[in-house]
Amino acid sequence: MVNEPTAEQRLQILLARINAVDTAAAERSRAYIDTLTKPPGSLGRLEALAIQLSAITGQAAPFVSPPGVAVFAADHGVAVEGVSAFPQEVTAQMVANFAHGGAAINVFARQIGAQVEVIDVGVASPLSLPGVVDAKVRAGTANMVQEDAMSREEALRAIGVGADAVERLADKGAKSIIVGEMGIANTTASSAILAAFTHAPVATVVGAGTGINSAQQAHKVAVIEQALHARQADSNDPLDVLSKLGGLEIAAMAGAYLAAAAHRLPAIVDGFIATVAALTACRLCPDVRGYLVFGHRSEEPGHATVLEALQAEPLLALGMRLGEGSGAALAFPLVQAAAAMLKEMATFTQAGVSSNAV
Amino acid sequence: MVNEPTAEQRLQILLARINAVDTAAAERSRAYIDTLTKPPGSLGRLEALAIQLSAITGQAAPFVSPPGVAVFAADHGVAVEGVSAFPQEVTAQMVANFAHGGAAINVFARQIGAQVEVIDVGVASPLSLPGVVDAKVRAGTANMVQEDAMSREEALRAIGVGADAVERLADKGAKSIIVGEMGIANTTASSAILAAFTHAPVATVVGAGTGINSAQQAHKVAVIEQALHARQADSNDPLDVLSKLGGLEIAAMAGAYLAAAAHRLPAIVDGFIATVAALTACRLCPDVRGYLVFGHRSEEPGHATVLEALQAEPLLALGMRLGEGSGAALAFPLVQAAAAMLKEMATFTQAGVSSNAV
Repeated sequence: MVNEPTAEQRLQILLARINAVDTAAAERSRAYIDTLTKPPGSLGRLEALAIQLSAITGQAAPFVSPPGVAVFAADHGVAVEGVSAFPQEVTAQMVANFAHGGAAINVFARQIGAQVEVIDVGVASPLSLPGVVDAKVRAGTANMVQEDAMSREEALRAIGVGADAVERLADKGAKSIIVGEMGIANTTASSAILAAFTHAPVATVVGAGTGINSAQQAHKVAVIEQALHARQADSNDPLDVLSKLGGLEIAAMAGAYLAAAAHRLPAIVDGFIATVAALTACRLCPDVRGYLVFGHRSEEPGHATVLEALQAEPLLALGMRLGEGSGAALAFPLVQAAAAMLKEMATFTQAGVSSNAV
Repeated sequence: MVNEPTAEQRLQILLARINAVDTAAAERSRAYIDTLTKPPGSLGRLEALAIQLSAITGQAAPFVSPPGVAVFAADHGVAVEGVSAFPQEVTAQMVANFAHGGAAINVFARQIGAQVEVIDVGVASPLSLPGVVDAKVRAGTANMVQEDAMSREEALRAIGVGADAVERLADKGAKSIIVGEMGIANTTASSAILAAFTHAPVATVVGAGTGINSAQQAHKVAVIEQALHARQADSNDPLDVLSKLGGLEIAAMAGAYLAAAAHRLPAIVDGFIATVAALTACRLCPDVRGYLVFGHRSEEPGHATVLEALQAEPLLALGMRLGEGSGAALAFPLVQAAAAMLKEMATFTQAGVSSNAV
């Protein structure tokens, strides 16, 4: 009888499957795009995006549809410190809303023909909702001010939950991945992780989240500073950062990005929390970066810091700050358009259009 | 026997049909959006867009699909002055490319389920292409450096061509309108019109167009300055500006925006040339402004000036400078998402989610 791999072994297997993107395919697309019926460079960032899609998939005419959406939900022990505008029970209530198709991510996912999978990776209350995957690693994290948010083993298992979700979406035919989240107080965990990784001053990476006022925001900064001081996470050890400062859904999202890269699927990254999870994935495996397409610049101030750390510029900037994967879903049609440009536009020769300057 | 109305009478009839947008419907949508399951304001500009769609249509749940795309093509006499990177025959060649479905606008229109109508409002060479509407007012404009680009009567007829195209699209069921153009040297005409309307220094509103170098750009500035001096268009008379400085397709696009407003259809405005046409429409009838949704911020430097004149901020900024309606088509999914938010998202009460702050 063969033993199941441990969570640690599973992560190592996943990391070993990730390769750098295909730069030769990228260069072929770059040259091909200049033969299409348009002035050179005139499609701007859509051209760079198309080149990246070729690099990710290795294809001259990349397929990105249908996209698959995975929304991970979990609770945060640090919510008891009064860091959020909404009570903790909203996490479970919103999971029910996702299951019934009434949340923003459901609406935007329908627009782009995406299946939505909702995964309970750590909601505090017991859930039994049709259409929600039960993959609860624990019933919410511990309060990081008092103790480690979770154990290293739990963080590894949460990463595995995220990877499993992407495996299922890929099996169902998803050609690109959008990852979203729900978790009251998860901007607090995200700001803490970001400060731990980048040593950015906490005050610069904390915002209003779902809508706290400036006094509450000062309190949120103090709570995070206290947690960082108490936990002393090792910034060179992403698993230490994740387990001490938390976010079961953040760990799952990091696992989802790793699995997307292993499958050579474009992963469209949402706002602040998703980008912190993407940074965590890149710290675990720098080759992941090439598979990430950044969807939307959030109003949450820490987003600028984490985008800078990843040298990323999102496609959209619509002043949103909702999460759930909503910004990534709204950006998906641009990804689809970039792929369609490669597949469907005529070349100067095909169309009999003069390509020479006067 | 009743005489056909003159082109001048037709414009007056069209203008009389345009009403201001419905501010009461807008206020109802604004209040409704705050009952949806998301933190207040967290969908950013998508919320403002949804409110505008209600104002335009008067509907609580506006319909915007399918969109209709009208691409107007015409030539410019000023091309003989050497202001463009491409020879004039490219206008006709690209019209053939549109007819065969190989241009960027065809690709992006298919993505959004839009019909594309291509209208020859003034291509210099005779065209006989299946799928291209023959509405040629004249075979290209005259060279505005030497004489008026067209007569006032021709400008009125070109406006009518644009209005007719929107009538046809509306008859076929289009619920929103995207207007595009093709016309070698039409950034030159657009810069001239913009300078005439706003008195902005010509050098600040001239760019590379399809790709001229800086010496050619200086020449383009000189040509426009010469034309402006020779034509002395009356900035308070939009028809004088249009007819003297030209653009049969620009006049048609202005007519299309007027007709979209008359039909209470959202018009998604593309880049520099389209926005100059939109400014012209707003000068003819200021109530048009409320019906305009701005799709994409072009790299063409004059676009910033004309957007400022219209107090407009486009949804996208992807470094594009292609025209054809491409930026507007890429922005359409955001318009669709804003409408879907109003139609499909659950309220806090419907979903049983706590809406009260802690």
